[in-house]
Amino acid sequence: MSELDLPVPSIPNARDAVRALRPSQIREVANAGFGVENVLPFWFGESDRVTPAFIRDAASTALAAGATFYTHNLGIAPLRAALAGYVSGLHGATSAEQIAVTSAGVNALMLAAQLVVGAGDRVVAVTPLWPNLVEIPKILGAHVETVALGYGEHGWQLDLGQLLAALTPDTKMLMINSPNNPTGWVMSRDDQRVVLEHCRRYGIWIVADEVYERLYYPDDASGARAAPSFLDLATRDERVICVNSFSKAWLMTGWRLGWIVAPTALMDDLAKLVEYNTSCAPSFVQQAGIAALEQGERFTEELVQDLKTSRDHLVRALSAVPGVDVKAPLGAMYLFFSMPGSAHSLELCKAMVREVGLGIAPGSAFGPQGEGFVRWCYACDTARLDAGVERLRQFLARHQHG
Amino acid sequence: MSELDLPVPSIPNARDAVRALRPSQIREVANAGFGVENVLPFWFGESDRVTPAFIRDAASTALAAGATFYTHNLGIAPLRAALAGYVSGLHGATSAEQIAVTSAGVNALMLAAQLVVGAGDRVVAVTPLWPNLVEIPKILGAHVETVALGYGEHGWQLDLGQLLAALTPDTKMLMINSPNNPTGWVMSRDDQRVVLEHCRRYGIWIVADEVYERLYYPDDASGARAAPSFLDLATRDERVICVNSFSKAWLMTGWRLGWIVAPTALMDDLAKLVEYNTSCAPSFVQQAGIAALEQGERFTEELVQDLKTSRDHLVRALSAVPGVDVKAPLGAMYLFFSMPGSAHSLELCKAMVREVGLGIAPGSAFGPQGEGFVRWCYACDTARLDAGVERLRQFLARHQHG
Repeated sequence: MSELDLPVPSIPNARDAVRALRPSQIREVANAGFGVENVLPFWFGESDRVTPAFIRDAASTALAAGATFYTHNLGIAPLRAALAGYVSGLHGATSAEQIAVTSAGVNALMLAAQLVVGAGDRVVAVTPLWPNLVEIPKILGAHVETVALGYGEHGWQLDLGQLLAALTPDTKMLMINSPNNPTGWVMSRDDQRVVLEHCRRYGIWIVADEVYERLYYPDDASGARAAPSFLDLATRDERVICVNSFSKAWLMTGWRLGWIVAPTALMDDLAKLVEYNTSCAPSFVQQAGIAALEQGERFTEELVQDLKTSRDHLVRALSAVPGVDVKAPLGAMYLFFSMPGSAHSLELCKAMVREVGLGIAPGSAFGPQGEGFVRWCYACDTARLDAGVERLRQFLARHQHG
Repeated sequence: MSELDLPVPSIPNARDAVRALRPSQIREVANAGFGVENVLPFWFGESDRVTPAFIRDAASTALAAGATFYTHNLGIAPLRAALAGYVSGLHGATSAEQIAVTSAGVNALMLAAQLVVGAGDRVVAVTPLWPNLVEIPKILGAHVETVALGYGEHGWQLDLGQLLAALTPDTKMLMINSPNNPTGWVMSRDDQRVVLEHCRRYGIWIVADEVYERLYYPDDASGARAAPSFLDLATRDERVICVNSFSKAWLMTGWRLGWIVAPTALMDDLAKLVEYNTSCAPSFVQQAGIAALEQGERFTEELVQDLKTSRDHLVRALSAVPGVDVKAPLGAMYLFFSMPGSAHSLELCKAMVREVGLGIAPGSAFGPQGEGFVRWCYACDTARLDAGVERLRQFLARHQHG
């Protein structure tokens, strides 16, 4: 194909830091199921339901009206205003000038990391954790130390002393995800207060991934509409950057729309980073975001009720399976539990999809601290969950005999 | 607002490398026109026409059909296949495995840079240039050397010797944009051949921003459908990464959809980076991309004819203005020309928008090498161009008297 004289050099590679990034073990499991008919997939962090019609219609209406041009880097003014109202209602006064619209929650995390960390910086993350928070800083040349949640009779718990010890004065940024993917762990307000005070003392940035904040099922009768947030405690002009997304609370995973709450003083620099990453989110997608915020509250509340029902149903069903150890977590949309064979979770999950068409995610996909567990996304109806548990029983029965 | 005991530290800043990134001087000019009624905007790189209806309809149809879920990191298979067909038709055999779908052309550039460069790496860019190519590597800690195009009787020209001298053996990546924004310069195939051979010799990556390739107006009667591309010369498994976008050839600026052509050997690592940046482009936006490729060829050809008409019209009109030095470039959708006062282009452009509501971009927005010029986007009808030139004349007349 080449017209040139020189020989083509050897097949090129990406730089070492990129080659060292973790590939998705969930995809590895999915690949193991390639060709298996009728797989029941519980492996992705995504509901099986389509985005509500009123949100899809808003995008189509905007398209028909010609909303196909670039927007301001930080998002269209009506969406920033609607987000400010929404965030203020949940977490106290927040202005549109403290909001940036992003091209997904993960894009918001990348932008937050770019704002704060560069080569050689020290970052701390609490794990098990979806890989993105741990890998993003590495793309920028930062070093990531992990602090592991522990699993005990009360489910997944944070050892606060261990986290504080890791947050040394030379730490640049803490990345923390609560409600947590994959464990469903929810950081308590008391723990948030201690961590915020500690980070304030040393000037450590807190980047809080609060994408699951609405998927919160408190034991008490508080009726809280959202999990405890750093936004409830922090001022709006300190080293706290909160990341959120339309993906979970409005079933908009495929839309790639998120937002950041950050100090006004950062917004000019954040706008530059948005320009150099994606420039803006699609304009008609932003219009759909306004519809979600303005008309979606009842939908989200019903969704959370449905998810709680599914969570409780799956916990009951799995608890009845011999050898399964599962507890109901306070948030997110996953059960992260142990079962016979889960000490080698990747191999187990490959075998389950291959042999019985059951698609669940290996705990090791969420870091070495997740090994010994598997993650089951329960964002679907209970009949589908029952079908999945039935396959789990088939698989275990087969391996008891085998 | 804070419930905590410790005083809040001083207002936080982004890290130095981010604060040093250039803000948009175009936005600075636009801000200077805030409150001015009836501004004629020629400052952005965007047509004034809405995306064609058949593309918008494809997105709405996909939304109605429920395409609201995550997709594969590298894009949906039918879009990758359609892109492979499109690229093969323009530049020779290219497979779907060599294509990655991205969340805009600029996102493709960010991904390409992340693949290749890290802290301390040397990058070379040819300027004047839209700021993104120069600033993106700096976010990753790389150093960027610039090589300036020269302006002479034949318009903007590359000094090939100067570029080769800058491409030292320790250079990691060349970022080059042809057809070029802002100058309209088009790199010749001969120059591309020499640069590719040189980069092959030293293992230097070429990241080619070919977003304007279809906006090409050759002097000859070749009937070429696209500007010379590195894809015409390179094999598909060497250190060449070509970046493209749906923004210009299908008027899809606000959609944020682009693609990368790169060696198959890079695709697993590229998929990881997509995961950690935006995870995927919105699924219904990808469906719209398929419609653009499958049904859009006649539209693009007519668009290019319209743009050529607008280019020639504006060159004629500006040439008749005393003190304006303008030449018709071979590509893109801009005239980058000098005029009385353009030695201080930022101040000039602010004055023009303030005094006569004429919105054009200062040359200094495209690096110090662009100072002395202004950029006019001619992607609109000729009546609008005439109205703009009339304002330019008014402005100059006023300043001759004053």
